[in-house]
Parts: sequence; structure tokens; C-alpha cells
Amino acid sequence: VSEHHDLDHLFDRLFPILRSITGPGYKESLAILGEAMPLTVESVPSGTRVFDWTVPPEWHLTGARLTGPDGQVYADAARSSLEVLNFSTGIDAELELDDLEPHLHSIPALPDAVPYVTSYYRDDWGFCLPDAVRQSMPREGRYHAKIDAEHRPGTLDIGSTVLPGESSAEILLTTYLCHPSLANNELSGPLVMTALHHRLERRRRRFTYRFVVNPETIGSLCYLRLHADELQRNLVTGLVLTCLGGPEPKLSYQRSRRGDSLLDRHVTDLADVRIREFTPLDGSDERQYCSPGFNLPVGQLARTIYGQYDGYHNSRDTKAFMTIDALIDAVNQIDDLLLSLENAARYRNLAPYGEPHLSSRGLYPTKNSPTNRDHSSDGRVDQRRFLDDVLMVLCYSDGMETMADIARRCGCTVRELAPAIDALEEAGLLAFAEEGGGR
Amino acid sequence: VSEHHDLDHLFDRLFPILRSITGPGYKESLAILGEAMPLTVESVPSGTRVFDWTVPPEWHLTGARLTGPDGQVYADAARSSLEVLNFSTGIDAELELDDLEPHLHSIPALPDAVPYVTSYYRDDWGFCLPDAVRQSMPREGRYHAKIDAEHRPGTLDIGSTVLPGESSAEILLTTYLCHPSLANNELSGPLVMTALHHRLERRRRRFTYRFVVNPETIGSLCYLRLHADELQRNLVTGLVLTCLGGPEPKLSYQRSRRGDSLLDRHVTDLADVRIREFTPLDGSDERQYCSPGFNLPVGQLARTIYGQYDGYHNSRDTKAFMTIDALIDAVNQIDDLLLSLENAARYRNLAPYGEPHLSSRGLYPTKNSPTNRDHSSDGRVDQRRFLDDVLMVLCYSDGMETMADIARRCGCTVRELAPAIDALEEAGLLAFAEEGGGR
Amino acid sequence: VSEHHDLDHLFDRLFPILRSITGPGYKESLAILGEAMPLTVESVPSGTRVFDWTVPPEWHLTGARLTGPDGQVYADAARSSLEVLNFSTGIDAELELDDLEPHLHSIPALPDAVPYVTSYYRDDWGFCLPDAVRQSMPREGRYHAKIDAEHRPGTLDIGSTVLPGESSAEILLTTYLCHPSLANNELSGPLVMTALHHRLERRRRRFTYRFVVNPETIGSLCYLRLHADELQRNLVTGLVLTCLGGPEPKLSYQRSRRGDSLLDRHVTDLADVRIREFTPLDGSDERQYCSPGFNLPVGQLARTIYGQYDGYHNSRDTKAFMTIDALIDAVNQIDDLLLSLENAARYRNLAPYGEPHLSSRGLYPTKNSPTNRDHSSDGRVDQRRFLDDVLMVLCYSDGMETMADIARRCGCTVRELAPAIDALEEAGLLAFAEEGGGR
Repeated sequence: VSEHHDLDHLFDRLFPILRSITGPGYKESLAILGEAMPLTVESVPSGTRVFDWTVPPEWHLTGARLTGPDGQVYADAARSSLEVLNFSTGIDAELELDDLEPHLHSIPALPDAVPYVTSYYRDDWGFCLPDAVRQSMPREGRYHAKIDAEHRPGTLDIGSTVLPGESSAEILLTTYLCHPSLANNELSGPLVMTALHHRLERRRRRFTYRFVVNPETIGSLCYLRLHADELQRNLVTGLVLTCLGGPEPKLSYQRSRRGDSLLDRHVTDLADVRIREFTPLDGSDERQYCSPGFNLPVGQLARTIYGQYDGYHNSRDTKAFMTIDALIDAVNQIDDLLLSLENAARYRNLAPYGEPHLSSRGLYPTKNSPTNRDHSSDGRVDQRRFLDDVLMVLCYSDGMETMADIARRCGCTVRELAPAIDALEEAGLLAFAEEGGGR
Repeated sequence: VSEHHDLDHLFDRLFPILRSITGPGYKESLAILGEAMPLTVESVPSGTRVFDWTVPPEWHLTGARLTGPDGQVYADAARSSLEVLNFSTGIDAELELDDLEPHLHSIPALPDAVPYVTSYYRDDWGFCLPDAVRQSMPREGRYHAKIDAEHRPGTLDIGSTVLPGESSAEILLTTYLCHPSLANNELSGPLVMTALHHRLERRRRRFTYRFVVNPETIGSLCYLRLHADELQRNLVTGLVLTCLGGPEPKLSYQRSRRGDSLLDRHVTDLADVRIREFTPLDGSDERQYCSPGFNLPVGQLARTIYGQYDGYHNSRDTKAFMTIDALIDAVNQIDDLLLSLENAARYRNLAPYGEPHLSSRGLYPTKNSPTNRDHSSDGRVDQRRFLDDVLMVLCYSDGMETMADIARRCGCTVRELAPAIDALEEAGLLAFAEEGGGR
Repeated sequence: VSEHHDLDHLFDRLFPILRSITGPGYKESLAILGEAMPLTVESVPSGTRVFDWTVPPEWHLTGARLTGPDGQVYADAARSSLEVLNFSTGIDAELELDDLEPHLHSIPALPDAVPYVTSYYRDDWGFCLPDAVRQSMPREGRYHAKIDAEHRPGTLDIGSTVLPGESSAEILLTTYLCHPSLANNELSGPLVMTALHHRLERRRRRFTYRFVVNPETIGSLCYLRLHADELQRNLVTGLVLTCLGGPEPKLSYQRSRRGDSLLDRHVTDLADVRIREFTPLDGSDERQYCSPGFNLPVGQLARTIYGQYDGYHNSRDTKAFMTIDALIDAVNQIDDLLLSLENAARYRNLAPYGEPHLSSRGLYPTKNSPTNRDHSSDGRVDQRRFLDDVLMVLCYSDGMETMADIARRCGCTVRELAPAIDALEEAGLLAFAEEGGGR
């Protein structure tokens, strides 16, 4: 209930802000997110060379309005942050509709929707508006296009925080915050991230968890510029969180480019999700994490995916479509998946030479006798079944096989092996052995 | 015939002895076995730490009898070595049936059988008896439980011997001797081992053969403590010999944990055996050899397997069930399998740069002519077929492929390739190339 | 047309010459071939030890005639170079038919054909003749067998040339010239080689191309003696060219022994050819290149294969059977295959950290908008499809995957990816990355 309230409130504060990949709207949004979870901000100066890219200047917009010859206001950034071309240059001109046309953006197929259009890397100005409105604009007379915008040197900003775990092996959770006034794509990712942080903070963590929020693409490239070495060393699995609201009941996992990470291999053993293979043709920041020079084990979790709903990148993408309930359901599913992933990892038998002497540790019947060794009899609470799990876990925990592999050998889930894992850890016979480095 | 007589005689001497994992019964049995094959004895002192285990003291039992209030003797180790709990502590007490019950062992489902029960690592005393007898015991009056037993410092003893071969690459044959008065499980293993030693001693050996007999589990752990390095270096394949008598017509091979040894890969090409996959849940000393720290290529050969016959671990397991004929049949099958395994191994072409000049060695027709190259014509004695075998063996004997792989390419058995292998060895063009180290 | 004329003329000059693995006939033929393409000649002295072989002396034949008691000439090397046993020793003797018989060679199943028979490594003399003629020879009287032949120290000669490409990674094209007066097997190989050289000389070459012509078997062994190190270092794929004439419509590719070369893996993606697996039981010089010590990625290209037509190794193998048109068709097919192989190779993304900034290079739309991302719409000229190809090529060109692998991911041919490959090479974002060494 409190989680629902918190997310709802956070949504309402963030939604109206005019964000872009840089500038005051993005900075304000990051500060608000920092109230919900601790975020360290790293800033990269405009003009910094980042791999094949250059960090753009800050975008400062103080107003954007398109007024018709009839005095009517056809677009106004004060009404909705979508109504100005994102990252637009400034303009103050009177011009005919014909000359205005190349600077207008609408969606004929969705006549009531204002599209979300950007122009980061080519100087341009423009307005976005519903196609129905566009069709009604008078052909005669002069329009007044006025955009008060400046591109100034400043910084691109990234927020991040780490929850340390028992192992330095790391799970990355990352999302992006640059989109203005869009709900599913993309306030859903940042909101789900705050709730996951809140939960993970409070439970045992075998893995270390790293949370990152940035402007899409150029932001993740900057983060890689600063932290790729650590990620190469420690990362076991990464998840780009995106489009986690909407009506689809199941989450959908897109594998990493390498396709062999712990999660890539076992996700369908651990959760009831749909699967997409990696593609460089669309998607989000996983395209940077998975580029061939990095090739990090970063997948993507989504629900109602970009491009697969009417409201994608336009004004129909609101809280009514996304719903806070859908976000909380996503938080539940991801939390469960991460718990299972901790059980599914590699462990190491600490007494691997011969079988450990189980009876001296209370883990073995002290008399041999013609007992029933049929595993299928009494369910998993059965004492023999527990012993079998102990023997299987010890035998195959060589630091190579994952516990999910062992569970497959046992014909059970990793959660069902948890009692044996816990008992062996307590007895000092087993240790978590994930070390990161990409598998 | 002589083999049958020898095994039968050896069986009758060994069967009645009261053996355990340590003590005079085991030592006497090892000495008798040492008359049938040369055995070097290695002794590990009681109390020695062996990996996660500790070598137990010697068990000295001079008598064990349970007398009823009616004067009747309900259990007596002098009558059968099974009637006392194996490794029992001493006791001399008068007690009611209710207090005696926890110390009695019987099998309700087999009312006439005396079970084999042990308590090596928890101090306990007890008697084993037929359930029919147990049901007839008077409820009133006091019983006299008298066990004269001591646990004294001494040694645990292992017998072994090596038959050197042309290569240091090694085959391990191992079995265990601790069970008292049980035939299939386990006098069958030691008896088959003596006969195999006798045969292998007399034939050409490409492999070196190592024979080991020990008390089960703790004995193989001690042997690994002393010899694991050599085994890691030289072992190509190991076989735990167990349960080799009984009515099952075919032998059964259990793969090693790694599953990729020469024998694991090719056993079904070489012999008509049933196959079991490795499991840590039951079995014998292969559980120690295959534990993840060693992961040695040790499988198990059996016929009528533990747990799969009524007489398993009770007094029904006698020579009448096991039969000497079944043991001799096992010796024949294992001897054949080992011969084939020598042919199935890796060999190396000693003139691998280009094709060797076969005609100067009498291995090639000196004129080219439009001869029939159809391989399927005249059977394998055909001269062209011999040349084909020579060419195939030379082409693929790169020290990586096994001869069994090459036989598969040729569509024949490794035994059918033997003439080509022998001719090429004689011509100095081919050498046995197994080097151990686990594959 | 000119190509047809050139090959036809070359054929007519080479066909009648009495060639063997050494001697003046071979030297003259190599000189004639050297007029059609530049050939550097390397000579290995007779008696040189070459791996397990010894270079034979030169064979000098000045005449060979078998005259009957009836005065009739039954064989005469001046009539056809096939009528003397190739590499025959000298003889001048009068003898009965019975003593002559072991020195006569004919084919009962093809009574009008003169067989091609050799005896390089065992001293022997002999004549070859049609079986119909042989059956007509008078049984009575003495025959005069006169062969003026000498085996003199000299050299074995190999011709070769290299067309350098952008990469040092190399394609080997090799054939053999020792057969006398036979068309398909073997003037087809040398003739096709000259035409391929002529074409490759005139086009862009990413690979370096090496052309080698030698006497079969001992010649390729000598070439390996001199150049195996270079081949080990640079060779990507080799092709033995043999039997490229005759009526079969499709070429046939025999994989290399290793079976994993660039061409082995992708040949059926690149051309419509039949496939044969490697075998050491027949074939040509690939048996030496693929012997286990070298194990080079050398396959074989043929059309109407040795042993699969009546005229194999006899006087029926003429230009009428082989046809120049069939050779030109083979040249076309091989030229196409080599072009595709250049596209099919490994390339490397030169900006692999993150996605390259495509818009600054004119390779990306500068505005995001709800465009149609359906790849199946407008065929491959479509702008989005081009961008998709660019993204796929960049994403997977990690120096491990081949472009043929990437084409399979894209569901297209490597030739269809050529525009994207070329654009990326021009933009400095992609480089050919084949390095030889056998894969």
C-alpha cells in the first residue's frame, strides 16, 4: 500500500517535467529520484569525447509557442512538454504555413496524439501537435514561431548507487530518465528501480547490486566510459529496465548478445517470462553494453514493449495506460527472479576431495540399513530426499556447474534446493562462488 | 577348470571370516587374497586425518551372544558373522526386551534373513537376527547381551599391485573386502580381480594395470591420500569391480562422473553391456574417485547390482546365489573388454608429414591401375581393404582421435583394425599414444 | 571468346607431350604453361629426401616400340604417349609372348582403350595397348621389345606465382601436370588455373592468391617441404583443381580433413555445388596437404570425378569428352565462388565500444520518428533495410563470426550484404580481418 502510494506520488511529480538528455529538466528529475533512493551523481562535461560520440551541450528552454494568423496557439511547451521538438534550437520568426510545414510533426494515423520527436545531433527547430489540429490550421496568413532555447556548455549527469552483497559478483539494474511526459516509456523503469532498491536494501544479498539511471544511449556510453573496467570484472548479469507497465500479463526478457550469461541460460527455469533474442536493430541501452567491444552480459526486462502499443512515443502514453499496479507487479516478479538467481548461481564444495564426512555433522544416517531409496515417494521434506539433495549439491558444485544445472539434474527447482544449500553453507561445506567476469 | 577350482576354494576360505573395515578379520582376509595374487600392503594408522575423515581404530571382537530369559541363544557371532552389529562396542548387561529393542535389527519383509548392519562412526552395540526369530522372543524376563569387543589403535590396510605395460598410461581395477559373509556383495569383486590379474600377467599389455583392494569408502579415501597424484597423472580409466555374480546375463557399466574417459565414450562400441549414468546417491568407491576434487575417470562394473536383489546386504547373499560360473563369465567379459580397450586407444602416426611411402615398406601396390576400389566386396581380408585400413589409421592417428573413433569412420570394430595397427607398429609408422591424465 | 580460343590453343599444344613426374616432357609443358601465366620455377634435385620420400631421377625416353614376330608394331610411344609404361626402365630384348605378358597392360572391359599405367617406385618396363589388339597378338615367334630410356640425376620442378591482395591471408589454387595425353584428368586443372589467374589479376583482391602447379604427390610434398611454414601461417583455404571438364553440370567440393575452414563451413551458402567429405582413400594432392602433420585447410574442386567415368586413366579421356566449354563454365563458377568467399570472411568493427555515431557519417536518420521498421517491406534497397544491415554487420563483426554467419542471421546472402560492407569500409568503421592460420 505504501509502495503504491510512493510510486504514485513520485510519478505525479516527475511526469510534467520537460526533460531531455541534458539540461535543467533532467537535473531536476534526477534530484527528485534521489529523494526516493540514494543516488551519487557523476557529471560529464559537454564536448567530452566518449568513444565515437561527443557529449552534447545542455538544452535550456524557457518557452516554445506556435501562434496562428488567427491568434490561436497551435503548440505550446507550457501545455505539454511534448509540443516542442526535443532539443530544438531557438527561433523567433513569422512565416507562411508552407515554410512552417517541415518543422511540424504529427501522426496522421493517430489524429489526436502529440508525437515525441527529438533532434539531438542535427540542428533543427520544430513543434509537435495532433494531426487533427494540424489539418485545421489556416493556409493563409503568417504564423509566429517562437522558441526561446539555448544550447550551453554544461554537463550530462548520471545517478547511481551500489548495495554491497556477500560477493563482489554484481547484478546491474539500469534505466533511463530523458523522456518527457511519457509514462510506460519511460517513467516505468525509474519507478520500478526505486522500489527494487527499497526491497533489496532490506534482505540478505549474495550478489552486489548496482543501480544506474542515465539519459538513454549517450548516458550509458558515458557510464561505460567511467565504469567499463569494473563491469568487465564483476558483472554477472545486467538488466535494462524499460516499458514495465501496460496490459501485458507476463514480463519479457531479451537475452544479452553473448547469450550465455547466468540469467540468459536459466531465466526460463527461474521465472515465467517471454523470451526475445538479442537484436541491435532496436531496444535501449543494452545496445551499448552489448556492443562487441564490451559484450557485457546485459539483457533487458520489459512488459508492454516499445513499438508494440499505440501510445509508443506519443501523448497517449499516460499513467492510465501504464498503471501503478502493473509497476508493482513488475517489482514483485523481478524481486522473485533475483532471489532465484542467487540460488541458481555457482557454488563451490569446500571439501571436494572425497565425500565429506556427513554423519559427524548430523547430515547422514549413522547406520546403513535397507531403507527405501526411492526419491519420488514422500515429497521434498523427506529425510532421504534431503540427503540426496545434499549429495547432489556437493558432487556437482565444482565452481563450473550452476546450481540451476544441478537442479535440472535433480528434476527440481533451485528454490527447492535452498534447504540443502543453506545447511551446507552453515556446515562450512559450501560457498557462493560467482565471481563475475561475464558468465 | 583350474580357474573355477581356484575361485571356489578361495571363496570357501574367505566367506566365514568376520570382517570389518579394520581389525584381524580384514587382515586375515587380505593375507589369504595375497596368496592368489601378489599384494603389497600399505597401512594407515588409526586416528590419521584423511581429507574430511579420520581413520577408525581396529575392531577386535572375541564373542557376541544374545541369550533369552528362556536360555535360548537368539544371536551369536560364532554362528554367523552377520549376527553382531558390525563395529559394535562391547556390552555385558541384563535387560528387558523393551530396552533391548533399539539394539535389534531384522527385516520384516524377509522374515528368515539376517541383515548386515554397521555402525562405524557412532558408538552403538547391537545384534542382527531373522525377523521370524525376533517375533518369537519372550516379552517377559531379562535378556543377557554380551559382546566382547574392543576398539584399539592399529591400522587400516590396503593391498595393491601393478602389472607394468608398454605405456605408463594406466588402468585401475579396484574392489573392496570389508563385508563379512556376503557373496555377491562382496566377495565377487576380490575373486574376479585375482583371476584378471592371473590372465593379464600372461599377455602383452599396452597399458599398465593397477590392482587395489581396500575396505570400502574410508579405504579408497586412504588410497587416494597416498596415490592421488599418480592417478591424476597416469589414469586412463578405472573400474570399481562389485556385485559381479548373480543371474543377470549382461554386465552393467556405470560411467564416471566426468563421462568423457576413453571407456566412457566407447564402452558400447567395445562390449555388449548395459549402461548406467554416474550418480553420487549410491554405489561404491567410485563416489570417492569421482568426487569433484579428484574427478578421476573411474567407472564401475557390476552384474546383479546392490539393491536390485532380495539378498542385498543380508544372509541370503550366498555362493548359491552368486555362483562361481557367473564370476568366470565376468572375468571373460572384462578380459575381452580390456583387450578391446587397448585397440580402442589413441595412437600416433610417426610420419605425419605427407603420406608415408608405403610401397617401399611393402604396404602399397607399386603400379597404379584401374583396380576395383569397392570396399564392400571381399570381406576384410581383401588386400585393398587392408590398404584402406592402413590409410585411414595413418590419416586420423593424430593423438587426438581414438582408434575407436577411426573404427567408427571405417564402419568396423577396433578388433577388425588390429591387423593394420599391428603392421604399422611393426613398420615403425605408428605408436600407442595414450598418456593418462584422465581422458 | 578469346578465353575459349586461348584455352583451346593451349590444350592442343600440351596434349601430345609425353610427360611424367620428371624429365623433359614435364619441363617443356611447364614452360608452355608459363607463357599463359607468370610462373616461378623451383627445382628440387633428384635424390633429395622429402619427408618419408626421395625425389626420383629424371626420366629420359627417346623411343619405345613393341614389334611382333609378324613385323607389326603393337605399341609405340611415338604414336601415343600412353603406349609405354610411364617411367619405364630401358629394354632391348627378343622374347616369347609368355615372357612378355607380365609387361603388357590393357583393359579387357574397354577393349579399344589404351590404359595409363605408371611405375615410379619399382623398376619395371612395359607397354600399354588396347585389349582388342592384345588378343590378336600371335602366340608363336619372338617379339622385339625396345625401350630407349634412362633415369638420370636432374630435378623435379614446380611452377608457382602469387597475386598479392589487401590482406596476407591466402587462398591456394593448386593442380598437377604430370599426366601425359589425358584431357579431363589432367589438363583441365592447369588450363582452368591459367584462366583464373587472368581474371583475378584484373580485380580487387582482399585475399592474396597463390597458384601452384607440380607433378602429383611427390611434387606437392616437395612444395610443402619448401613452403609449409608460409602456408601454416597464411592459408585460409586451398583448392586442388582437378577433373574440371566432362558432362556433370555442377561442380563438386571435397571438404578438407579438418572440415572447419572458411570454405568448408560456408561453401553451400556461397555456391550450388555437390559436397564430398574428405577421405584419404583416393583423390589428389589434398592427401598431402591434409596429412595429419600439416592438416591444412585444403579442399578439392572437381566436376566429372576420377573413377566415375569410362575414360578415367585411359585413351578415351580426350578433348571431345572434356570440352573447353565445360572448362570455361568451371572458371565462371570458381571465380564467383572466390568473390563470395571474400565477402564471407571475417571482418572487424573498428569502433566496437558502443554503437558508432552513424548520423555524423550520413549512415543514420537524424530524427527519431515512428517509422516502419518492418524489414520485409521494400526489398533490400530500402533505406531502413540498409541501416539494419549496417547495424547487424557492426554488431557481429567481432573478428570471430564470419560475414557468412552474419548473413545467416540476416536471412540473406553475403552478396546482399556487400553494400553495407563497402559503405562501412569506406567510413573507416570496418576492416577485413582474415589472418590465415587455417580457419
